[in-house]
Amino acid sequence: MQDTARMLPEWVYHDCPVISLLDREAALARQAELTKPTGSLGRLETLAVGLAGLQHSERPKAERAPIIIFAGDHGIAAQGVSAYPQEVTIAMLANFASGGAAISVLARELGSPLEVVDAGTLAESPMPGVVTDKPRAGTRDFSKEEALTPAELAFAYACGERAVARASSPDLLIFGEMGIGNTTTAAAIAAALLGTSPDRLAGSGTGLDPAGRDRKARVILAALAHHGLGAGNTAAERVLCAVGGLEIAAMSGAIIAAAQRRIPVVIDGFIVSVAALAAVLLNPSCRPYLIFSHRSAEQGHRLVLDALEAQPLLDLDLRLGEGSGAALALPLIRMACALHNGMATFAEAAITGRD
Amino acid sequence: MQDTARMLPEWVYHDCPVISLLDREAALARQAELTKPTGSLGRLETLAVGLAGLQHSERPKAERAPIIIFAGDHGIAAQGVSAYPQEVTIAMLANFASGGAAISVLARELGSPLEVVDAGTLAESPMPGVVTDKPRAGTRDFSKEEALTPAELAFAYACGERAVARASSPDLLIFGEMGIGNTTTAAAIAAALLGTSPDRLAGSGTGLDPAGRDRKARVILAALAHHGLGAGNTAAERVLCAVGGLEIAAMSGAIIAAAQRRIPVVIDGFIVSVAALAAVLLNPSCRPYLIFSHRSAEQGHRLVLDALEAQPLLDLDLRLGEGSGAALALPLIRMACALHNGMATFAEAAITGRD
Repeated sequence: MQDTARMLPEWVYHDCPVISLLDREAALARQAELTKPTGSLGRLETLAVGLAGLQHSERPKAERAPIIIFAGDHGIAAQGVSAYPQEVTIAMLANFASGGAAISVLARELGSPLEVVDAGTLAESPMPGVVTDKPRAGTRDFSKEEALTPAELAFAYACGERAVARASSPDLLIFGEMGIGNTTTAAAIAAALLGTSPDRLAGSGTGLDPAGRDRKARVILAALAHHGLGAGNTAAERVLCAVGGLEIAAMSGAIIAAAQRRIPVVIDGFIVSVAALAAVLLNPSCRPYLIFSHRSAEQGHRLVLDALEAQPLLDLDLRLGEGSGAALALPLIRMACALHNGMATFAEAAITGRD
Repeated sequence: MQDTARMLPEWVYHDCPVISLLDREAALARQAELTKPTGSLGRLETLAVGLAGLQHSERPKAERAPIIIFAGDHGIAAQGVSAYPQEVTIAMLANFASGGAAISVLARELGSPLEVVDAGTLAESPMPGVVTDKPRAGTRDFSKEEALTPAELAFAYACGERAVARASSPDLLIFGEMGIGNTTTAAAIAAALLGTSPDRLAGSGTGLDPAGRDRKARVILAALAHHGLGAGNTAAERVLCAVGGLEIAAMSGAIIAAAQRRIPVVIDGFIVSVAALAAVLLNPSCRPYLIFSHRSAEQGHRLVLDALEAQPLLDLDLRLGEGSGAALALPLIRMACALHNGMATFAEAAITGRD
């Protein structure tokens, strides 16, 4: 049983719109009329039908799919939990903005606008091409103290909502993240929310060796004990204050804000899935709006996906983050819509049906 | 041990070019320099590196990817092995050409030219938008007699080669198929080539119920016994004459012809994979050129993929054919190339590497 601690802005807890059963049924009926054996397009059929219900339209769309990257730094990085130094967060932020990062390349390929939000890095001044929207520079080291105050956490949720409000009438949204140390933060949050051993959730991140991964799991275990977490019965708000990350909280807020506006969200890998888990625990009505893009190579992802009863579209051993897995799945979603909307029916093609 | 029966045109047996180890190594080195943790793009990295070796270029390309559909009819359809009547083959051919089929929609989305080849349907006269290139109209019923003469089989291989020769300097090729009854033909070929029980290879095709599927497996079992096949030691040429299909043979020829021209081929589902299996048995040097796109819901596909030691990119419960699964995987291949070619290096982005 989760306890409750409604310390976040009131909108976070508001119900998301229900799906349109009428449009869902109409889309299902259309699928049965298209010139192919029923069910032969497998998961693309369920995708298109699901989107029809969410978008309240028999003809779903996935053309306008902005990508928003939230970046944050993590005090826990001081405990040597990452293979890369902390300054890489800010350097990669610049790389996103100047077009050299993986997600920059994918955004160009997909024709998706890319917005980069500094939701809590250590950067001391605004960076070109980056929206600065943070309550503080980096979280506190959660092995020693609470990572965030309730006010800082609330600010991060509002940062996510503001980013969604800036996107101009998207069909879908993709959120991604950057932050050295954030697989440690994400594993700590997931361990606390699920009551699962950190050893099962801590992965090799950007490339820790087995000894480094063991150390990371031990750091998390000690921190959860320090904060009295780990039994899986603490409210998401309290977990996020104790061991949270600003970019993770911002994504969690953005997920809820998108669903409340009836915008489906394509969920990336481990870290975004942890943000989604927090979002679903805070506001279960957002769950139908989540499309899970891929199963990451990061070991904890499987447990988080299981907890969310999610079956991702891709399984390609990705473990980059930045929203890259979600971006890679977007063409499948677009083609699911194109097939649904563009194929001829048996009647239009004058083709005999089944014997 | 396969016997040998070199009854096909001599070119079929010619070696395909070897890969460029130099370009492969250069591509591997480049991957290690890009602004991401090494290996974090998982299978997309191996894809790009593999293509570099095949295309003899450190910067692989997947832009020009024509789709060629080969259609054929199957005498075995008279044995009631399909959920759809035989005239659907020709009707779907018209649907491909007029733009209403799944693969027509996908070709438009991908900007890929779509060529439709009548490699052996029952159509009595040429159809608009269809290349007619067939030795006969449909195969003979293989439950009663040999499906094809050696000359007809050789014609089908040449048909595949001609289609590849018509494609203008493609980076990759996608082959697809249409033919009522062709999962039965494909299962019979695979059972004979692999020495596996037809019961494990016959699937529900376009939508047979369990009783229909059992009947299909029994029809194949009896036919293999009739032709003295089934021990897995008969040459591919003899198997294809006994229980083959014209579109399957044409695709097998096209796969070899593409590989000989150093053009990688994106392999679709069960039926194209069986054509690929025959191609690899006839000419093992074509194997490196095959990129497997997806794992089909058709039950026999897994066995054929295992025999080819293939790990497909997608697993989406597809079972349509038409090259649709290969088309759906093309954006992943394109994005693998775009990432490989377009990302900044650590040096370019002035980012510190690992600790």
